[in-house]
Amino acid sequence: MKELPLSKVYQLLEPGPVVLLTTAHKGRVNVMTMSWHMMVEFEPPLVACVVSGANYSFAALLATGECVIAIPARKLAAKVVKVGNSSGRDIDKFETFGLTPILGKRVTPPLVAECFANLECKVTDTSLVKKYNLLILEVLKAWTDPAQKNPKTIHHHGYGKFVVDGETIKLKSNMR
Amino acid sequence: MKELPLSKVYQLLEPGPVVLLTTAHKGRVNVMTMSWHMMVEFEPPLVACVVSGANYSFAALLATGECVIAIPARKLAAKVVKVGNSSGRDIDKFETFGLTPILGKRVTPPLVAECFANLECKVTDTSLVKKYNLLILEVLKAWTDPAQKNPKTIHHHGYGKFVVDGETIKLKSNMR
Repeated sequence: MKELPLSKVYQLLEPGPVVLLTTAHKGRVNVMTMSWHMMVEFEPPLVACVVSGANYSFAALLATGECVIAIPARKLAAKVVKVGNSSGRDIDKFETFGLTPILGKRVTPPLVAECFANLECKVTDTSLVKKYNLLILEVLKAWTDPAQKNPKTIHHHGYGKFVVDGETIKLKSNMR
Repeated sequence: MKELPLSKVYQLLEPGPVVLLTTAHKGRVNVMTMSWHMMVEFEPPLVACVVSGANYSFAALLATGECVIAIPARKLAAKVVKVGNSSGRDIDKFETFGLTPILGKRVTPPLVAECFANLECKVTDTSLVKKYNLLILEVLKAWTDPAQKNPKTIHHHGYGKFVVDGETIKLKSNMR
């Protein structure tokens, strides 16, 4: 994995891909699927996300204040759905679905080796957890896999329907 | 425009498309481009978004507590960029860029006739405005244009680079 400057992190999340979120708590690592996230600040990169209290990851996230956001490309779509349809209460999802946890530098939750990007995060604001299960994360370190060229991400439209990245267009713009 | 059940609104925003946001304040309508948004609740649909204080729309949004989120398809990409690169302080963007404001049912800001979906929203929580310019919106009414079949949305990767929706895949899933 190659380090990505923090100033470029928003370019990964702003397009709205389905992501994986990993946690580590009481000696167990876990991974969930997430689509409700957005950028909040460019740099340091702040990310808002909504994690249901029904998710096994929720308690781990709150207790440890750490997670990794891992971004899967299209080839991982089937695994992403399996991760979303099962609970870390019942199984070790990394082992069951053949995902490889690797150590990051700043937080305990693992990166996902198969993902083309991994963002090490800490929870920085829980003031809207009670009302909306909304957390603010700061990205501390970002990694991309140079071996995955032009990865196509997937975007969830509900009930297992995903749209994959298609054509890229470049328009003259002064919008960052 | 045809009414869309509120229970389906998340299917439009969860994939992370670039959207337009309209406001109406002191007799002037305005429209801005936005990519920092996410779903917060299914029903009633709650949406979080970040609107920079530098945007002319920001004051209107705060003062009136109303907006419309309009979702453009690929054919509007060039106009979406023009909207993002100009300010309502200087010009009437609807007129300048040939967008058609039409009246909704629940709020004063206009729908955008050229967009395939329009969501009438009210601001329901401003507690994170001071810290992050983050607002919570509730979608009161949702509309889609039946004449636009299978619209392809655009997703911003920074500096005018957009990825257009490609292939659709359907996987067996119990994820809503």
